[in-house]
Amino acid sequence: MNLQPSELVIRMTLTSWESQNKRFAELIEKFSDEALLREIAPGKNTGVYLLGHMIAAHDGMLPLMGLGEKKYPEMEELFLKSPDKSGKTLPPVAELRKRLHDVTAELNAQFGKLGTADWLSRHNAVSEEDFAKEPMRNKLNIVISRTVHLASHMGQMLYLKS
Amino acid sequence: MNLQPSELVIRMTLTSWESQNKRFAELIEKFSDEALLREIAPGKNTGVYLLGHMIAAHDGMLPLMGLGEKKYPEMEELFLKSPDKSGKTLPPVAELRKRLHDVTAELNAQFGKLGTADWLSRHNAVSEEDFAKEPMRNKLNIVISRTVHLASHMGQMLYLKS
Repeated sequence: MNLQPSELVIRMTLTSWESQNKRFAELIEKFSDEALLREIAPGKNTGVYLLGHMIAAHDGMLPLMGLGEKKYPEMEELFLKSPDKSGKTLPPVAELRKRLHDVTAELNAQFGKLGTADWLSRHNAVSEEDFAKEPMRNKLNIVISRTVHLASHMGQMLYLKS
Repeated sequence: MNLQPSELVIRMTLTSWESQNKRFAELIEKFSDEALLREIAPGKNTGVYLLGHMIAAHDGMLPLMGLGEKKYPEMEELFLKSPDKSGKTLPPVAELRKRLHDVTAELNAQFGKLGTADWLSRHNAVSEEDFAKEPMRNKLNIVISRTVHLASHMGQMLYLKS
């Protein structure tokens, strides 16, 4: 590899993102549907809610980063706007497993098309005026913050009884 | 700010590191000593073990990144090499609170002295030969992986009863 410093650092960030997503997918696969329906600890989140929460959060990266529409827009209401155990009907676990795979694959395909200038361009939750003053509010920063978000919930999922 | 792309991305990585450390320090402060001595869930880690684990992991960044000796070398045996509830005598919680602050402050002071070339230079767990082939194994990558590690355990600590 003979990358420019900026390319190298972007690659490092993406490698961390990919590695956390891979670990998460492996963890989810390890759990049966029954295990995912359990609470991590009494009164805490269920595995299935955290699974849906990750899919919804990552699906939302598509429009936020200008990479397309959400694949599963109905997930936002269920897993981002509603808390766990809201009483709302959730998709079956098998369907959520498929959606996790779909959203991750779509993001990674889109990410492969972006160059340094794209990564450092603004995301859609910041205005051009604010971005001029705060250049860190770019697309790559979404990946950094979502990687940390994923790691945080994956840490919790590690406590789920398999 | 008018930063080079590589400087900008390094700054973003460090901002994520600092923000997670700040959140962790605030979370630890919110817990009483008694709360930290509890298990997060039955049979799972105690708050105090995860606190010590983070201090030991971060203290180890100093020699790994060529930034000096560990401040609390005895922490490795207690919180990295030994599992939770090993029966070994742990430092008092008040002392751990102080050490968390010390280690974070030392790292951030050292980080402030590094430029782009330093961040992209090899860390001490990789040989010069391997680094030539794998330039991602640099000092900044330690920060990326430790930020994810911190986020993962902080996610778990959020489940600790305060």
